[in-house]
Amino acid sequence: MVEYNAPIRDYEFLFNEMFDVIPIVQKLGYDFDNDFLSMLTEGWGEHAKEVWLPINQLGDKKGLDYDDGKIKMPEEFKSAYSESIEAGWLSTSCKQEHGGMGVPIFFSAVTWAEIGTSTNMAMSVLPALSIGVYEVLVEHGSKELIDYFATNLATGKWAGTMCLTEPHAGTDLGIITTKAIPQDDGSYRITGTKIFITYGEHDMTENIIHLVLAKTPGAPEGTKGISLFLVPKFLPSDWVSGGVKDLSENLMSDDNGVTCSGSEEKMGIHASPTCVMNFDESIGWRVGDLHNGMPLMFQMMNRERLATGMMGIGLAEIAYQNSLAWAKERRQGRDLKGPQEPNESADNILVHPDVRRMLLEAKVNTEGSRALAAWTGILLDQMHSEDIEEAEMAEALVALFTPIVKAHFTDLGCESVNTCMQVMGGAGYCTEYGVEQFYRDVRISKIWEGTNGIQALDLAGRKITHNMGKNLRYLMWPLTEFIENNRTIPEMEEFNKPLHQGVRGLQQLTLLMIAEGQANPHFLAAGATDYCRYFGNVLLGYMWAKMAKISLEKSGDPFYDAKIASARYFFKRIFPETAGLAARIQSGYKNLMDYPVEMM
Amino acid sequence: MVEYNAPIRDYEFLFNEMFDVIPIVQKLGYDFDNDFLSMLTEGWGEHAKEVWLPINQLGDKKGLDYDDGKIKMPEEFKSAYSESIEAGWLSTSCKQEHGGMGVPIFFSAVTWAEIGTSTNMAMSVLPALSIGVYEVLVEHGSKELIDYFATNLATGKWAGTMCLTEPHAGTDLGIITTKAIPQDDGSYRITGTKIFITYGEHDMTENIIHLVLAKTPGAPEGTKGISLFLVPKFLPSDWVSGGVKDLSENLMSDDNGVTCSGSEEKMGIHASPTCVMNFDESIGWRVGDLHNGMPLMFQMMNRERLATGMMGIGLAEIAYQNSLAWAKERRQGRDLKGPQEPNESADNILVHPDVRRMLLEAKVNTEGSRALAAWTGILLDQMHSEDIEEAEMAEALVALFTPIVKAHFTDLGCESVNTCMQVMGGAGYCTEYGVEQFYRDVRISKIWEGTNGIQALDLAGRKITHNMGKNLRYLMWPLTEFIENNRTIPEMEEFNKPLHQGVRGLQQLTLLMIAEGQANPHFLAAGATDYCRYFGNVLLGYMWAKMAKISLEKSGDPFYDAKIASARYFFKRIFPETAGLAARIQSGYKNLMDYPVEMM
Repeated sequence: MVEYNAPIRDYEFLFNEMFDVIPIVQKLGYDFDNDFLSMLTEGWGEHAKEVWLPINQLGDKKGLDYDDGKIKMPEEFKSAYSESIEAGWLSTSCKQEHGGMGVPIFFSAVTWAEIGTSTNMAMSVLPALSIGVYEVLVEHGSKELIDYFATNLATGKWAGTMCLTEPHAGTDLGIITTKAIPQDDGSYRITGTKIFITYGEHDMTENIIHLVLAKTPGAPEGTKGISLFLVPKFLPSDWVSGGVKDLSENLMSDDNGVTCSGSEEKMGIHASPTCVMNFDESIGWRVGDLHNGMPLMFQMMNRERLATGMMGIGLAEIAYQNSLAWAKERRQGRDLKGPQEPNESADNILVHPDVRRMLLEAKVNTEGSRALAAWTGILLDQMHSEDIEEAEMAEALVALFTPIVKAHFTDLGCESVNTCMQVMGGAGYCTEYGVEQFYRDVRISKIWEGTNGIQALDLAGRKITHNMGKNLRYLMWPLTEFIENNRTIPEMEEFNKPLHQGVRGLQQLTLLMIAEGQANPHFLAAGATDYCRYFGNVLLGYMWAKMAKISLEKSGDPFYDAKIASARYFFKRIFPETAGLAARIQSGYKNLMDYPVEMM
Repeated sequence: MVEYNAPIRDYEFLFNEMFDVIPIVQKLGYDFDNDFLSMLTEGWGEHAKEVWLPINQLGDKKGLDYDDGKIKMPEEFKSAYSESIEAGWLSTSCKQEHGGMGVPIFFSAVTWAEIGTSTNMAMSVLPALSIGVYEVLVEHGSKELIDYFATNLATGKWAGTMCLTEPHAGTDLGIITTKAIPQDDGSYRITGTKIFITYGEHDMTENIIHLVLAKTPGAPEGTKGISLFLVPKFLPSDWVSGGVKDLSENLMSDDNGVTCSGSEEKMGIHASPTCVMNFDESIGWRVGDLHNGMPLMFQMMNRERLATGMMGIGLAEIAYQNSLAWAKERRQGRDLKGPQEPNESADNILVHPDVRRMLLEAKVNTEGSRALAAWTGILLDQMHSEDIEEAEMAEALVALFTPIVKAHFTDLGCESVNTCMQVMGGAGYCTEYGVEQFYRDVRISKIWEGTNGIQALDLAGRKITHNMGKNLRYLMWPLTEFIENNRTIPEMEEFNKPLHQGVRGLQQLTLLMIAEGQANPHFLAAGATDYCRYFGNVLLGYMWAKMAKISLEKSGDPFYDAKIASARYFFKRIFPETAGLAARIQSGYKNLMDYPVEMM
């Protein structure tokens, strides 16, 4: 029943016309061109549609089978996963020396992630985590660890997880109690319980490689005392004394004290295991320096935050496509100006302004988010530039955009799926039509990898002020230049003027947040969520104004005319929410903190 | 796991202090006093908590059992239902002559509905429908029909349904094809298929009485040709020739050609059947005049719309209670101003402004909605006043409030459950904690009984202008008087001033909608949803200003201090969204209707 076509045309527009990515990545040393990019985008779009999408509803219905510490995945998921790794689709960004395709990061971080989550969100999480573990390992692991684990992670033969949360410690990782006791051979014995571990246990791969946050004896209090450890589910069969040097390519079969003691029943993504994991003197190896686990885990976390943001886009896109297809078939009522198709019993519901309002809200937010995602993806590549200024700029902008991509895109994703469901009336609520699954699945994206409230605090409390304000300046330079360059172009006024006002508003609110936040951190925290949303609106406004600019030069072609109309919708019907957001931020903290909490 | 206590104190405040309901209903002829009201509120709160709540999660998990046209409800639902009808809790508003309690409508329409949906939304729908059928029958049915059906409906021995939607006709009932062929004995033979019929088939009651919209031969086109028919599932065993006069109290057992050919799998309310119903020459009797079915069905529909609005409040309330309870236990991070409980590993999360923001959003929207619901409930009684002016006023305001109660309360309900889930982080998404069920259950309320977009069109396109503008004037008189009376009271300024601005804004937007809407109905339809939300904000603003006024006189008492703080939250953090709504309405219809629809 569920329809889907990967948004190939939109990606061509973004990567070729809007951001001209090929020269950028070629300069970075990639042997990569337009044809290769098209082949990847179309190939993955087709593979995901043919292999992942058909089992997405099945995964929701069947879910996983938890029994006595073992999780069995649906057989259909196992064979689809095998097919995908054989075709190389799960390791596009990994190094060729590890069996990956070695293509630029932006493809896997953006295009791959969106299409993967559209077609099968529960499935897509597994390779996304494995690649996250791979990247941390390759950058920070010892040579022995890399030699032994990197290839199997890159090819998808083995899977990876991130183990942070404990029953009493989620957002607040400083109070974790998992212990890591150093051994004479350089390895550690890890003991503790981790919860909410995505794909912590399953039978999709031969082995599962856990990245675990733990504390060594005598480590400092709080997050500064946390180290990062690599702990495999299975040790090699010839395991004797401990050091990684003894590991071999033999099939691992020995128990390493890693057990799964529960699997959460969840509202959605039923085919994605969420596990309680117990480590009982499990052998592991430190990755990176002692007490330096948080920055490394945050490197992976930041990648997963961007991936989570892409889920907002992915689920909104497929919900939109299905809602639109439904609307095109559905006839109810008449155009208020008179019947459009008098020979039919009723007009198509697209004649109703309110139906268009809902569909366009989803479309415009999704395409605007996709544009910012595309930019962010390219910045991920540019972070590795040898040109120091380019790398600094990219790092600053990725730092700034990460909480916004995560929080704003997932908020918008949930809202878009919501309006798409509404377009379909009763059918939207019925399982048969598929959209209700997207509504349930997408909801976790607001919680995963740090709730959206945490993202907002990260933006307002850290990303704005840290790095000596550079994060914001690297945005404001091109943004104010764009506004200035378009001030005298009449056709751009309807986009440029509100964008300009929005940027001024953002600057004033930023100063307010910093100034008042220094006097009272509650002010900053009370306004953070609205500030993040305001910022998201300005960034999407920038994207829409840029898209309008490009499209105005090609008007007459339906694709570009639609972009212009979408930009218009954005500034007329989405951007105005900034007024209310500003008022909420300005209302301060007293209406929250003076509330008699015992009467809540 | 799920906690719940009926909001008894809040209802006391509303019905006694704010609206002083007892003299009003006594004047209407009810033998009803404060003690009786308290007894009802507390009694129902306790009964629902003890009998309905414990099986709510079970109903979600187990759902119903559809097999070959028969639906078996969970045994626990059947016994709970029996217990409730024996205690008389399902027929408080029905006439004593039919076995009801004969208490004022407001209790069942507001208090009963909220508590019922909080504790078990799937269950609560069954009696709500039965009472709806009962009311239409008693007001418009023939004496024979009333004699035969009213008591069994009122006591809950038999259940009722409303059969409107057909596969091709949901919002657009004018194109239904179900036929009613008149018989010599005055009965009709009904043939057609109806979908999305809530509790269309089940084994909770001996018989099911369907109210069916159908067309007689030669009836006018569109909704003007629709008549309303009462069609029982079972005919009496001594049935011979047709007329209702032949019906007896004997157990009905004969097949009446009413069959269920399917049960929808839905995202939520798993224990509430949603049926495809087939009528095959089923015997039925007309209720009301020929071709006058729509106004009668709308009488029931309007009651169900109010009931649906109450679901928004009910689900938000129980989600809030559970989210708050969770927040009180959860310790993560520290107060940004310094540890509040240094001896604990972390502070309680209520120290975080963003957590308070989310919880208060749910609390303030829910309590504001409850106040307007209480007023609307009292108006339902006043509609039956013998004082013509009182009845006219009540009818006008109920007409005006119905789409707002339905659309705005369910929008807010979905949003509140959403923020409550967010407060709980990962736990919010896990089945164990209960809130995810509320998130799924409440979502249908935006679709049921006319989608919220339809409600908005009803408000903007009908309720404002019809009745010679009286609907709006009956609101504006007391509202502008209230604002005038509080202009010079300094403590009221923070509430009264924004309310005043909001009312002025509403008046301007109303004039704009009417003026532009006459020139182009697309303008009105394009702005309807935002207009409805703007209107909802003004009404909740009125309620919060009134509650603040009462509470200021009693400040020092924690209950009233919290009301004042809630009113402050409302005007500082909810009401400001009106600025964006106004801009969207003013943006007109072109950004929707000029969009190149083939490029959507």
